[in-house]
Amino acid sequence: MRARELRSVLVVGTGLIGASIGLALRARGLHVYLRDVDAESLAVAVERGAGLPDGERSPVDLAVVAVPPHLAADVVTTLLDEDGIAAVTDVTSVKAPLAEAVAGHPGAARYVGGHPMAGREVSGPAGAHHDLFRGRPWVICPPATNGGRPVEMVTQLALLVGAMPVRMTPQQHDAAVAVVSHAPHLVSALVAGRLRDADGTEVRLAGGGVRDITRVAASDPAMWRQILRANARAVRDVLAAVRADLDAAITALDAPGEPDMDGVERLLRAGVAGRSRLPGKHGDPQAEYVGVPVELADRPGQLAELFSDVGDVGVNVEDVRIEHVPGEPVGLVELSVRPDAQDALIDGLRLRGWTVHGS
Amino acid sequence: MRARELRSVLVVGTGLIGASIGLALRARGLHVYLRDVDAESLAVAVERGAGLPDGERSPVDLAVVAVPPHLAADVVTTLLDEDGIAAVTDVTSVKAPLAEAVAGHPGAARYVGGHPMAGREVSGPAGAHHDLFRGRPWVICPPATNGGRPVEMVTQLALLVGAMPVRMTPQQHDAAVAVVSHAPHLVSALVAGRLRDADGTEVRLAGGGVRDITRVAASDPAMWRQILRANARAVRDVLAAVRADLDAAITALDAPGEPDMDGVERLLRAGVAGRSRLPGKHGDPQAEYVGVPVELADRPGQLAELFSDVGDVGVNVEDVRIEHVPGEPVGLVELSVRPDAQDALIDGLRLRGWTVHGS
Repeated sequence: MRARELRSVLVVGTGLIGASIGLALRARGLHVYLRDVDAESLAVAVERGAGLPDGERSPVDLAVVAVPPHLAADVVTTLLDEDGIAAVTDVTSVKAPLAEAVAGHPGAARYVGGHPMAGREVSGPAGAHHDLFRGRPWVICPPATNGGRPVEMVTQLALLVGAMPVRMTPQQHDAAVAVVSHAPHLVSALVAGRLRDADGTEVRLAGGGVRDITRVAASDPAMWRQILRANARAVRDVLAAVRADLDAAITALDAPGEPDMDGVERLLRAGVAGRSRLPGKHGDPQAEYVGVPVELADRPGQLAELFSDVGDVGVNVEDVRIEHVPGEPVGLVELSVRPDAQDALIDGLRLRGWTVHGS
Repeated sequence: MRARELRSVLVVGTGLIGASIGLALRARGLHVYLRDVDAESLAVAVERGAGLPDGERSPVDLAVVAVPPHLAADVVTTLLDEDGIAAVTDVTSVKAPLAEAVAGHPGAARYVGGHPMAGREVSGPAGAHHDLFRGRPWVICPPATNGGRPVEMVTQLALLVGAMPVRMTPQQHDAAVAVVSHAPHLVSALVAGRLRDADGTEVRLAGGGVRDITRVAASDPAMWRQILRANARAVRDVLAAVRADLDAAITALDAPGEPDMDGVERLLRAGVAGRSRLPGKHGDPQAEYVGVPVELADRPGQLAELFSDVGDVGVNVEDVRIEHVPGEPVGLVELSVRPDAQDALIDGLRLRGWTVHGS
């Protein structure tokens, strides 16, 4: 009893996301038309098979706006005025401002905002891939006045590219990405900023913890400026909550006489509880793995030998981390496995001549 | 012209660190005696070959105190009063309070604090390993009144176990670990704490960034309570600096009319600069690698096949990350390689049948 199926799509903007959508939909047999003011990007996307140039397109069921965020509102409203487009969606990472900008348009009921939670560190159609969205959430933000065909079209789009549709209001979406992405990013930058004034001896003492915490702080500030600008209010609210907890931590450590370590421990325990809510492998609640550290020499082939032996042992490795030893051509590989596989892995690797740390 | 060589050591406390020191020194041919109030831990360490019980020991050049932090001051001063011990050091993670506690003792000139920057997520002698300290910094804190034999002994200790001696005052050390470890840990917990109140739909949108930022927040709150207690003042100072930057960020996002994005971008750029100061592989300034994402099925043997093929291609992999796709038995492996090896790796893997995302 499904409504009419999505058969034809116009993708406007042929960067990483737009071209990947085109590739994914073409792989499912849809008609895809591509449009871009950048002729070179368009040519690359066409050549990669993401769709046909839209010069002589037929009417389409859906237009997908995948242009830079500051252009999205203009492009969406222009497309709503264009003939032969049943519905319009977009992929920008902040939803409420765009929804507000489109709300006054007479065709607003045909617009449904979207945000696929996928990306890569590269941009442009050359990095596009039909599997970019597989298993990733795709947020869909129906306008309050509309739950009909356009929403159905965008939902089909998400399913066709292998994503998991998640329905939220624009405000819910923006609050969610503020708490799971935008505010954490800014806090990571602030922690990293403290390292700028540290002297060389101090930073030599850095280990894996601060490296993890500050990893995203290396990202492009110009891009993050745009994201934080678009979601300023929601990010500010999360940061204000972080500041309240930070004040509590400072007050506890500053308590006259003796630090209030019960107060500090409460904050640490809240962190453990919050961390445990992040989804783990296969969407399960976060699985607990144990780490098995193995030494290896820093030369080609070592990892292949190791994983070949891991394969012989028959244990499934859930995660891998490589830690290099400063100044030495040797590294530690930490293999994360389920607790019930730990002993078999350790014994099996030692039998095969590997140096495994631990009991 | 070297001073007398370190030949005999008494290790007090046979947990992970103490037993690992014993194993490393025994491997270098030193006489090692072990002492622990926990008879079972002592027995395991002796059985693993970390040293001999100290019942009938000869005089030693150096005693190493590797007991829990809150016991360290008492054990150090007791050892300074004991016959047949030329010098005393310790391995606890905060140095100034201990230095102050020992300063009034008549034998204080024979005590030199230390802190090996190594550890594992496990504790106890069963997890000990002679290579635990290889390539890691070992901070040595000479008292102001003394630069002689005891410092030479502790320096030899660090070198013998393969560590890199780094000389700092206790205050410098505590400030350094506050900025590169203790304060970042607490901030990570605060970011994770924000996830506690997020609803299920919100946390589903979490990606790799927040997962990295909050990884250490899963650590044992009781242990971190002790560490933060011991280094409360230095941690508080770093947190106060973070708060000043956080205030600036909130003020910028809150600016009446229009957010002050120049101010936000300054903070982001400071983060990039700070992050770039973390030492990279082989102690070089942080090397830049590029990621090559490869799809693999979630079953034993896939990683072995992949790294076997990587080995055939002849490219050295600098780091590995596995990203699981929620709800699907498939994953993405991101291989980090030097930029000049990227094309060879992509082409080589595709030739061998792997699905590699990207151009």
